Amino acid sequence: MQIAMVGLGRMGGAMTRRLMAAGHDCVVYALDAKARDILASEGATAAVSLTDLVEKLQKPRAVWLMLPAGQATEDTVQQLRDLLAPGDAIIDGGNSFYKDDIRRAKALADKGVAYVDCGTSGGIWGLDRGYSMMIGGPPEAVARLDPIFAALAPGFGHIPRTPGRDGQPSTAERGYIHAGPTGAGHFVKMVHNGIEYGLMQAYAEGFNILRNKNSEDLPEDERYTLNLAEIAEVWRRGSVIASWLLDLGAAALVKDGQLSDYSGYVQDSGEGRWTVEAAIEEAAPVDVLSTALYARFRSRKDHTFAERMLSAMRFGFGGHIEGAEAIDPMSPSPQP
Amino acid sequence: MQIAMVGLGRMGGAMTRRLMAAGHDCVVYALDAKARDILASEGATAAVSLTDLVEKLQKPRAVWLMLPAGQATEDTVQQLRDLLAPGDAIIDGGNSFYKDDIRRAKALADKGVAYVDCGTSGGIWGLDRGYSMMIGGPPEAVARLDPIFAALAPGFGHIPRTPGRDGQPSTAERGYIHAGPTGAGHFVKMVHNGIEYGLMQAYAEGFNILRNKNSEDLPEDERYTLNLAEIAEVWRRGSVIASWLLDLGAAALVKDGQLSDYSGYVQDSGEGRWTVEAAIEEAAPVDVLSTALYARFRSRKDHTFAERMLSAMRFGFGGHIEGAEAIDPMSPSPQP
Amino acid sequence: MQIAMVGLGRMGGAMTRRLMAAGHDCVVYALDAKARDILASEGATAAVSLTDLVEKLQKPRAVWLMLPAGQATEDTVQQLRDLLAPGDAIIDGGNSFYKDDIRRAKALADKGVAYVDCGTSGGIWGLDRGYSMMIGGPPEAVARLDPIFAALAPGFGHIPRTPGRDGQPSTAERGYIHAGPTGAGHFVKMVHNGIEYGLMQAYAEGFNILRNKNSEDLPEDERYTLNLAEIAEVWRRGSVIASWLLDLGAAALVKDGQLSDYSGYVQDSGEGRWTVEAAIEEAAPVDVLSTALYARFRSRKDHTFAERMLSAMRFGFGGHIEGAEAIDPMSPSPQP
Amino acid sequence: MQIAMVGLGRMGGAMTRRLMAAGHDCVVYALDAKARDILASEGATAAVSLTDLVEKLQKPRAVWLMLPAGQATEDTVQQLRDLLAPGDAIIDGGNSFYKDDIRRAKALADKGVAYVDCGTSGGIWGLDRGYSMMIGGPPEAVARLDPIFAALAPGFGHIPRTPGRDGQPSTAERGYIHAGPTGAGHFVKMVHNGIEYGLMQAYAEGFNILRNKNSEDLPEDERYTLNLAEIAEVWRRGSVIASWLLDLGAAALVKDGQLSDYSGYVQDSGEGRWTVEAAIEEAAPVDVLSTALYARFRSRKDHTFAERMLSAMRFGFGGHIEGAEAIDPMSPSPQP
Repeated sequence: MQIAMVGLGRMGGAMTRRLMAAGHDCVVYALDAKARDILASEGATAAVSLTDLVEKLQKPRAVWLMLPAGQATEDTVQQLRDLLAPGDAIIDGGNSFYKDDIRRAKALADKGVAYVDCGTSGGIWGLDRGYSMMIGGPPEAVARLDPIFAALAPGFGHIPRTPGRDGQPSTAERGYIHAGPTGAGHFVKMVHNGIEYGLMQAYAEGFNILRNKNSEDLPEDERYTLNLAEIAEVWRRGSVIASWLLDLGAAALVKDGQLSDYSGYVQDSGEGRWTVEAAIEEAAPVDVLSTALYARFRSRKDHTFAERMLSAMRFGFGGHIEGAEAIDPMSPSPQP
Repeated sequence: MQIAMVGLGRMGGAMTRRLMAAGHDCVVYALDAKARDILASEGATAAVSLTDLVEKLQKPRAVWLMLPAGQATEDTVQQLRDLLAPGDAIIDGGNSFYKDDIRRAKALADKGVAYVDCGTSGGIWGLDRGYSMMIGGPPEAVARLDPIFAALAPGFGHIPRTPGRDGQPSTAERGYIHAGPTGAGHFVKMVHNGIEYGLMQAYAEGFNILRNKNSEDLPEDERYTLNLAEIAEVWRRGSVIASWLLDLGAAALVKDGQLSDYSGYVQDSGEGRWTVEAAIEEAAPVDVLSTALYARFRSRKDHTFAERMLSAMRFGFGGHIEGAEAIDPMSPSPQP
Repeated sequence: MQIAMVGLGRMGGAMTRRLMAAGHDCVVYALDAKARDILASEGATAAVSLTDLVEKLQKPRAVWLMLPAGQATEDTVQQLRDLLAPGDAIIDGGNSFYKDDIRRAKALADKGVAYVDCGTSGGIWGLDRGYSMMIGGPPEAVARLDPIFAALAPGFGHIPRTPGRDGQPSTAERGYIHAGPTGAGHFVKMVHNGIEYGLMQAYAEGFNILRNKNSEDLPEDERYTLNLAEIAEVWRRGSVIASWLLDLGAAALVKDGQLSDYSGYVQDSGEGRWTVEAAIEEAAPVDVLSTALYARFRSRKDHTFAERMLSAMRFGFGGHIEGAEAIDPMSPSPQP
Repeated sequence: MQIAMVGLGRMGGAMTRRLMAAGHDCVVYALDAKARDILASEGATAAVSLTDLVEKLQKPRAVWLMLPAGQATEDTVQQLRDLLAPGDAIIDGGNSFYKDDIRRAKALADKGVAYVDCGTSGGIWGLDRGYSMMIGGPPEAVARLDPIFAALAPGFGHIPRTPGRDGQPSTAERGYIHAGPTGAGHFVKMVHNGIEYGLMQAYAEGFNILRNKNSEDLPEDERYTLNLAEIAEVWRRGSVIASWLLDLGAAALVKDGQLSDYSGYVQDSGEGRWTVEAAIEEAAPVDVLSTALYARFRSRKDHTFAERMLSAMRFGFGGHIEGAEAIDPMSPSPQP
């Protein structure tokens, strides 16, 4: 079927290619003309503006947005609201906040335009592996777009079937679900990313312990210099903690066991934050997901004011400036 | 080669079968005579005591212990110390604390008996999938036992190779590593389990958020009743958080989306605790691994004294007993 | 000066009494007629409606709201917006969210009515001890209300002066501050409550450790049956962790060292949640403040779905239902 | 009575002075001859060695150690074991691990020498304010030393009595308790310090939020530039979070609201670590106490390997190096 793709970055570009490979007819647009030209040379129809894009589509139209969440997506939805007609659909495949979906869907409903939110996971591997998709929105619109989702999804593939499932594979087994009404897709994707933060932090803390096991602060016969690449590799094979994230960690460690290319400055995106806020709204404890987020916040600071505050209080009762302390073995520091 | 297996529970029994299937000659012993008889009927040589076991083995002997960590393993090592001869080896395949390994290895070294610690992962699936093994101990003993490790391990199998690896697969790629000197095997396995706790808690918190998204405390258009089994399934396919633990969660949820068979009382074993202590010895922050452990502690209490203490302090400044509070909309409670 | 008090619960009633004791002229209103009558009998002028209240005040009017945050406060502000005149002021002394203050202040500014937000701490002790107040809003309005704040505040009193301060005591030294523009008062009060959660949880965890030190799981010579009331008392005297919260804990423990009156079901109010959200907006790590909040969430559940999910995954690799496990000492459970 | 003090650092020196001021006869020793001489000039009897010290004491002797926990204390106890006689007592006033107390007490019991462990809080303020003491050991020895404890303690003083207490003040009300058998004193002091870490971290996180509320990342009308010194001051007066630690924070902030003298590198001592380990032994959740400890660990690193590991995994699925990312507004990064 015909589908428009707006936003041709690494995600949008690869998704367009996967859709074309499945025989779909893609009309594409991005601010970057070169990105449009490249995809046109591969068989897509390039539009020079959103207006042009809408004109190039037959009704009922389907416009997939693959843009940064926030202003870029917001502005594009607003513009399309004026350009599209009743029966058309916008699919937001980016990482929007699900409450924004709810608001946008209401605004578009007045115009008879359907809004479908689609949380999309897969990273740079999606072109080959396919994308895992979590979809929210009105059933009719989601049903009409099924060929698109089916093409983007990994399909049943070689992943072993979950025990207890039989018969015709559900869409979940082919890599996409209609999770619920508007916002449900991005909500599920948001929690997915929240979990991802927690998983990553668990691996990171574990490898950190392994790495520091050769510390000179430890008794000599309790020190080990461990080969992290080999450990990651063995865990990939038959262990309980095997996962795709571990595969990625193993690949990085085999390249360089010190990970010297990485500064340790770790970004976070909205989903991790929104997951914590969603949990708080539900009064659901999320210690691991929160602390994984905060570890990233902390990674981006040299020192926090909180730490200076700790030192200042310590000085208050102990009378010493941190770090400048010389200890006479028979003269202990004041005890708190 | 010939190998003795002591402890024929679900782990020891399955490992014996896997070893016999690979052509190894197994002499077995457990307190439970029925367990011995069953394995004897499958081709193993059953011993009626540790003494008998040792007599049935040719030198240099290899005795694999698959016993609960702690007293059972400790006692058996002590007894074997008196029964074995220089050149023999004990392999502790259980979940011993690595500092106990170091202590035991020293005690056995006096007698010329090698002690090999082998952290073993794989659960009830190991018989078919093979076991991931992390090994510590003297290089000669570990080398001599290589056929045993190779037979227990999953082997290269169908798991895709880590990019950057080529040539002859290392033992890690076949599912086992010699991690370092005595204790290193159990240390690596311990951290593995610590990570496992963190991973599990991340999934658990995430599914909890999904589950509670239909709470009546939320605004009506922000409530979703989500199908957790379908969500777990879609995440298995092409998503960043795909893992073996998720596979297990998906299987549980497809059977019963409410998980009503489970009380929510969650046990922990030594490794999770030791991981936190090891991190503290290294002054390495492990927020996620700790909190995952504490969530299990908390799951096993009705209420903690800590919570009563919170209520008592709240009463102190607020003047009300928790839970018995009726709120007049124009008469707020005292503000802390 | 003349001041109106709306909301005559334990906070509003006590504050009215403290204001009258300082010679201020109080006009009072609450839904509960009995509360109005009692204060009238103590010297206040009782109004029978908000309209009546406004009529009983001379311009420029000052109306202090001491209502539950949320709908009650919101509705009252809306009604007063229509009743008040340019030059009048509303003071919200409740626990409103500071972003609501910003929104309300803008709406009232159109009418020339000033909005002052005042975070108020002191609990049931405030009548005698005075209230600690954190104020946000336009400087002129805050200045005009100074006699009210001064009367409610504890005053310089007998608390030792902070080293480094001299000269005429600032208002902070008398117990109130003009923290900044609209919302700043409630923002500071919100963080105050966030800190309070963290402090309380720290004491609670510590006393919990002391309480459980007689556990039969511990080696016999490491078990102590500790007298928590005596410990709390000694910490009040010369120790680094002396505080007013500890005073409250000590009083509860002296009454009943088991705290048997308290169920351990602990409520939380908006400020703890908003503090975490404010920190996330700043990308500031708040591990302690978050975990203190989550401990309260958890205290109000029997079991979480998260815990059932943990058990379900454990069953997946270990093959046993939690709690129903009988362990043969020579037959360990499958190892994860 | 006569008492020996070994270790004349800031703690031991000040305690000697407080004891002499109360009329006790002090024999002192430290490695540092100058420290001995100064105290001798103030009325103490200086010894030139431990042997000399013991000779200068009448039986039954009492020797108070005020040394760094660990080797210094251990060695001194060992030496005194050979020098002292049945009926004598050693008091360890340092921050020893309570399990070391248990071990030492057993070793000394063979010789008839009593061992008393005394956790001592008060910092540099103790000389004037007195010391809060938590004591473990045999009742007779503790009773004999009562005049010493009474002199060091703050005494009943001006701190308001806890409601519910009446009659003759207990020793707790005068600032010291006999908490239980050997080790109980240091155990209680250890938990005291664990709580202290949690309290400090709660304040630190709160002030950090206040400090960062003027961040340019926030919407303009939600930014405040707050005066932390004034906020700390107002919280000291009538607020629920008033405490001695807050007093210290307020003093630091009034001197310099930026705390520029402090690097943010925060040390930790054994007690915080042991508290977490003690909790784990009891299976007691201690999220706040742990995370407070880890925040100090993290404060002493530039970056952790854990953070590099996070970045490496992110690179694995996202294809970008952290920090080097330029974002085309229409070309989002790959989505995890």
